[in-house]
Amino acid sequence: MAINLNNLFNSLSKNSKMGDFQDLDHIDGLSVSTTCANLYSEKRDDLVMFYFRKGATHASVYTQSKLISENIKWNLKINKKKIKALLVNTRNANAFTGKDGFKGLKILAEDLSEELTKKQNEDEDKPKKIEQDEILFACTGTIGESFPTEKIKKSIPELVKKINYTQNKYIWMKAATGILTTDLKPKLAMEECYIGKKLVKVYGIAKGSGMIYPNMATTLGFIFTDATISQSILSQLLKHNIQKTFNAISCDGDTSTNDMVSIFATGEVANLNLTSSKDKKLSEFNSALFNVLLNLSKRIAADGEGASKFVTIKVKNCKTEEEAKKICFSIANSPLVKTAIAGEDPNWGRIIMAIGKANVNLNPNKLLIKIGNILIIENGKLCSSYDENEAAKYMKEEKIDLLVNLNLGKKEFSAYTMDLTKKYIEINSDYRT
Amino acid sequence: MAINLNNLFNSLSKNSKMGDFQDLDHIDGLSVSTTCANLYSEKRDDLVMFYFRKGATHASVYTQSKLISENIKWNLKINKKKIKALLVNTRNANAFTGKDGFKGLKILAEDLSEELTKKQNEDEDKPKKIEQDEILFACTGTIGESFPTEKIKKSIPELVKKINYTQNKYIWMKAATGILTTDLKPKLAMEECYIGKKLVKVYGIAKGSGMIYPNMATTLGFIFTDATISQSILSQLLKHNIQKTFNAISCDGDTSTNDMVSIFATGEVANLNLTSSKDKKLSEFNSALFNVLLNLSKRIAADGEGASKFVTIKVKNCKTEEEAKKICFSIANSPLVKTAIAGEDPNWGRIIMAIGKANVNLNPNKLLIKIGNILIIENGKLCSSYDENEAAKYMKEEKIDLLVNLNLGKKEFSAYTMDLTKKYIEINSDYRT
Repeated sequence: MAINLNNLFNSLSKNSKMGDFQDLDHIDGLSVSTTCANLYSEKRDDLVMFYFRKGATHASVYTQSKLISENIKWNLKINKKKIKALLVNTRNANAFTGKDGFKGLKILAEDLSEELTKKQNEDEDKPKKIEQDEILFACTGTIGESFPTEKIKKSIPELVKKINYTQNKYIWMKAATGILTTDLKPKLAMEECYIGKKLVKVYGIAKGSGMIYPNMATTLGFIFTDATISQSILSQLLKHNIQKTFNAISCDGDTSTNDMVSIFATGEVANLNLTSSKDKKLSEFNSALFNVLLNLSKRIAADGEGASKFVTIKVKNCKTEEEAKKICFSIANSPLVKTAIAGEDPNWGRIIMAIGKANVNLNPNKLLIKIGNILIIENGKLCSSYDENEAAKYMKEEKIDLLVNLNLGKKEFSAYTMDLTKKYIEINSDYRT
Repeated sequence: MAINLNNLFNSLSKNSKMGDFQDLDHIDGLSVSTTCANLYSEKRDDLVMFYFRKGATHASVYTQSKLISENIKWNLKINKKKIKALLVNTRNANAFTGKDGFKGLKILAEDLSEELTKKQNEDEDKPKKIEQDEILFACTGTIGESFPTEKIKKSIPELVKKINYTQNKYIWMKAATGILTTDLKPKLAMEECYIGKKLVKVYGIAKGSGMIYPNMATTLGFIFTDATISQSILSQLLKHNIQKTFNAISCDGDTSTNDMVSIFATGEVANLNLTSSKDKKLSEFNSALFNVLLNLSKRIAADGEGASKFVTIKVKNCKTEEEAKKICFSIANSPLVKTAIAGEDPNWGRIIMAIGKANVNLNPNKLLIKIGNILIIENGKLCSSYDENEAAKYMKEEKIDLLVNLNLGKKEFSAYTMDLTKKYIEINSDYRT
């Protein structure tokens, strides 16, 4: 593998823009294995398998695109409340690959279920046959290219051979780098919390980079917990917490065919006696899940294609959250705002432009705008204290905060994005070459 | 003036990407004058006045932004069916300039109405006093900077001195270059047509460049005709024809505070006896107006900031025109599609992505996609004849045509845009510096 993990740990812990880097450790009931299936021209891990030896309850949210990838079609057909494995490949999205793309997944599922059944027979006291419909797939990469079924199939024995029921920070780092495409940095996050009196873990890894806009875009996120939580509760917790995390980031307003955020519960921490997603015992877990999702989302935005700055946009005191969100994304998706930020230009006129075009009724005379702690617009007027030199100095920071206050209500929303640089164009005009 | 007009004519006539360049000539009842008010650091014409010696009926469409510039507020208060002058300045948008910005316009209107009244007294047999509310303003440039009232006021005598009731291609070119901001090329178009047995002219100039998305964005367009047409008919004709012309272009999905497209009729060609906008005598005029608006719109898209290619996106056989339009703009505003085009990469997977995210119900198995004459997707599958080398060769063209056929209905829409290049980032991260 081309990546030197120790160097990577060193470089990541030095980068404080996104806060401390967290090392992930062991989660009971899970195995993580990675390998190189030669999907790229250079040698790198491009295949990652998460295997749940005793199964895991699971829930997922998927892209809102009307043209979805074959693996998402596959996953949507899975009825089992517990699954045994998730196989993730990069380089190829398996989108618009037609019947062959879907058939490829069936071939892989057949093969993988057989190999994993053999493994169960070797390892477990009470081995269970593993069915094809206990396997989920996540794919990311170029749309429309033939799915490399054979290459992946050849690598399955290696993935199964590498099954290891103990994880450490190295294997998590391998997994987090193994799912990347044009991302520069692996994205990992973790929390520990109590459900009742029992300590449980919430671990997550993700990838993003381009095509990132609410509704999940070439975004993959996988959350793991050792808690025992039913599928229906997992599903409600995920849907609730996704709104202000993964659905609050945007890199370019583009949405992919392949987005998928999933949560898996291995159930190793048992007897939690949860009755519903509103169970009070879940309040810490709910926060932990939110924090992990938010942490990963922010890392995705901060590492958006070509990003030189991480931008938080908060719109507050709106009549509805929906209106706050509209203005957030009107700003977050505005190429003119984003290029100004890349140019370190406090061009607040473009923020005005983006607020104006969001199609939200507002009272210009009540508007307040801040960049960082610098008040620019108050009561709809340029602040007399506003000093453009001071603002220009602030724009040189790596983290930029924009605040818009409509002073019309009590609702708010925050969105996370990056600047738009020449590097974005470079990456995306050369993506396939 | 820094621009050599003869060189400009030569360079424009050589550029065949947008079809033949048209020379505009004389229109009765109009005077066009331009001057340099030193609004830029370099010397260039930045102030253009259109003066209608006998008045002109007029109609306008404005930006849909909720934060509109002071000049648009001014124009919206004008009740007169005939106006006498339109003053256009560049460099400063007079947006978010508050009461001072509006007061600036009032000062200019006072001064200009006086100066023009004097001019009437000198030139006309039956001079009329010119009122402040017979003057319209168009502004374009940076948002939020103090409006340069004094500089413009000082230039009014020069503009009035230059009033000339005969136009030629040189004065039109001066006007078309005088209203530009970051545009590289002046935009002019003309048609002649009959209303009944009378030949009339439809002339137009425009500016665009960035912040261009339907609903009029830092777009200014001015259309002039010598026909006698009432304000209400002009208004209906303009609203009808704007939909598939100025509202069908997008450069970056951003919408300005200042957009304005106006039509003025000097009424020098009289006795047309028009009853309504549906009058059959108007059919040729209606087409001519459409052609002038479409010609100008395309020129704006082709000259979008940093554009290296002009892109036409046609989406056909949809259930509704609205759905066709949604898909058109989902493609036209996708940074990933636009960077692929800049990179001359026939990355049709990104077109798929953009169709999918448009939130239009479709049947993937009926989808057809073409780039130029090259069939890529048919019946929802990659065409067996598809040759990526051939497609890559096509992508080197300056004019790129994308066709999407949903095969679900009979409605269609076409949108016009450009590619997204490093140059766009360069222009927009350095705009104010």
